[in-house]
Amino acid sequence: MSYPSNTVVILGLGLIGGSLARALRDSGFSRRFIGYEHRESSLRRGMELGVIDDFTLDLDEAIEQADIMVVCTPTLIASDMLRQILSRLAGRTGGPVITDVASVKGNILCAAQQAWEGRMPPQLVLGHPIAGSERSGVDASNADLFVDHRVILTPVEGNDPAAVALIRAMWESVGAEVVDMTVTAHDAVLAATSHLPHVLAYTLVDALAQSDASDDIFRFAAGGFRDFTRIASSDPAMWRDIAIANRVALLDSIDTFSEHLGRLRNAVATANAEQLFDTFSRAKQARDEFSSILAQRSKQKP
Amino acid sequence: MSYPSNTVVILGLGLIGGSLARALRDSGFSRRFIGYEHRESSLRRGMELGVIDDFTLDLDEAIEQADIMVVCTPTLIASDMLRQILSRLAGRTGGPVITDVASVKGNILCAAQQAWEGRMPPQLVLGHPIAGSERSGVDASNADLFVDHRVILTPVEGNDPAAVALIRAMWESVGAEVVDMTVTAHDAVLAATSHLPHVLAYTLVDALAQSDASDDIFRFAAGGFRDFTRIASSDPAMWRDIAIANRVALLDSIDTFSEHLGRLRNAVATANAEQLFDTFSRAKQARDEFSSILAQRSKQKP
Repeated sequence: MSYPSNTVVILGLGLIGGSLARALRDSGFSRRFIGYEHRESSLRRGMELGVIDDFTLDLDEAIEQADIMVVCTPTLIASDMLRQILSRLAGRTGGPVITDVASVKGNILCAAQQAWEGRMPPQLVLGHPIAGSERSGVDASNADLFVDHRVILTPVEGNDPAAVALIRAMWESVGAEVVDMTVTAHDAVLAATSHLPHVLAYTLVDALAQSDASDDIFRFAAGGFRDFTRIASSDPAMWRDIAIANRVALLDSIDTFSEHLGRLRNAVATANAEQLFDTFSRAKQARDEFSSILAQRSKQKP
Repeated sequence: MSYPSNTVVILGLGLIGGSLARALRDSGFSRRFIGYEHRESSLRRGMELGVIDDFTLDLDEAIEQADIMVVCTPTLIASDMLRQILSRLAGRTGGPVITDVASVKGNILCAAQQAWEGRMPPQLVLGHPIAGSERSGVDASNADLFVDHRVILTPVEGNDPAAVALIRAMWESVGAEVVDMTVTAHDAVLAATSHLPHVLAYTLVDALAQSDASDDIFRFAAGGFRDFTRIASSDPAMWRDIAIANRVALLDSIDTFSEHLGRLRNAVATANAEQLFDTFSRAKQARDEFSSILAQRSKQKP
């Protein structure tokens, strides 16, 4: 059997890294999987579970072994990790293809270019799988996590086309649908659809929890509230990091939202029935169309 | 068999009214059910389904027949309907006990007092079942809709205690848990837990739909966004009416939320990691406690 890659190094062996290793093993994309991170316990657990074949605590060794390095650490650490890898590769030709899975791309692109004399490292292909789970850690990893999920790649000028093709093939081999976007578009779309909703849900729950009537509020909240605030149970450290990493696009999203909320507030204050009805109707129509897209997407699954 | 009530008149035969009639028939609370509203087709359909025994298009006749009148019309129409009923009863002693199911209580209390020479009609007991469905209309009605759901009653000074007891018994007979609150507390709690989340979801979806990147936005939105925006698919006319009916409490809720959002915006703008982490952590803790309450509640179900 021939493999597109001999050795994949997973940097940060949690839900995403572990699931990718499992899935790539199943798909026959790579022969060997090596884990690297600072928590030796996760790496040993990954060995026990058969997710990785070996691990190292030495970044130079990880780089030596790798055909592909996938940075799966939390968002803010991902930039540092890439800087460390790139500084070791500076001036060398060849070496591994490098990719990541972080939720924000602009800050990582910036860090990578700084570490590479202001240019794009040709072998670095930034990516973001739109997949996850409420569970975390290598114990929660599963080989099907990416099946029928989108993976956004953000190739830039200066990228080696062969490196981009390899990372695309890697994600396609685990059943994902790969889509290209610019870094700016990626960060704006994610701010709007994910980062802003998290900020709104956290803000609402925190505001209610601090109100005098918080006992009654949570006692009488119903199903709509449960769905609306579910994402406020997400990991605070992860979302702190994402909010900071994507702060420019997130601020834009917050400001646009606040403008719209201000307009709706005025419509409520003046009992402007027509404006309220028009706004709610437009939103319902858009949300119903979104439901159809989702239904269509799940129909395409085997 | 003896019934606590001989005849219940349902004014507005939709999901809530139809479900209540079915449930009260099953519980043996009333012998007879009569429908009243302006859509004769709904009434005929209710007869076909066996939800009601008879109907009338004449309000005087409905009043004559009723031991209990339950106003189940949409929120804004409920005030008018109560005014019509109360103006016919003014100066009379006895007559039916009257209740409603509207989502907002302050505007209805106000309308009722205006129709009753500035005092509280003793036989009017305002209520709000915290139950619903994405479906609507009498065809969607089901006898279990209120089982293990909360019903908030807002009795006020001037209410006849026997009338309050009868309405409490009515809801308890269909499996609901009845809780008393003041009108002001009810409207504030509902604004915070239901009306504000709807406004936020409508605002977000409308803002995104109007953005230049709306195609990409809806294409890449994931599960968190789906849950967060589900309530933006709710009926625009119903929510226009609720927003207007509860505008004072809703404006308070919007303003409190906006203040908190403004603070969080500043934390993002200044990359204040500590403030972001603290806010997100407090919210997560409150949301996790809410999850436990919900889990506890569903465990109590048979």
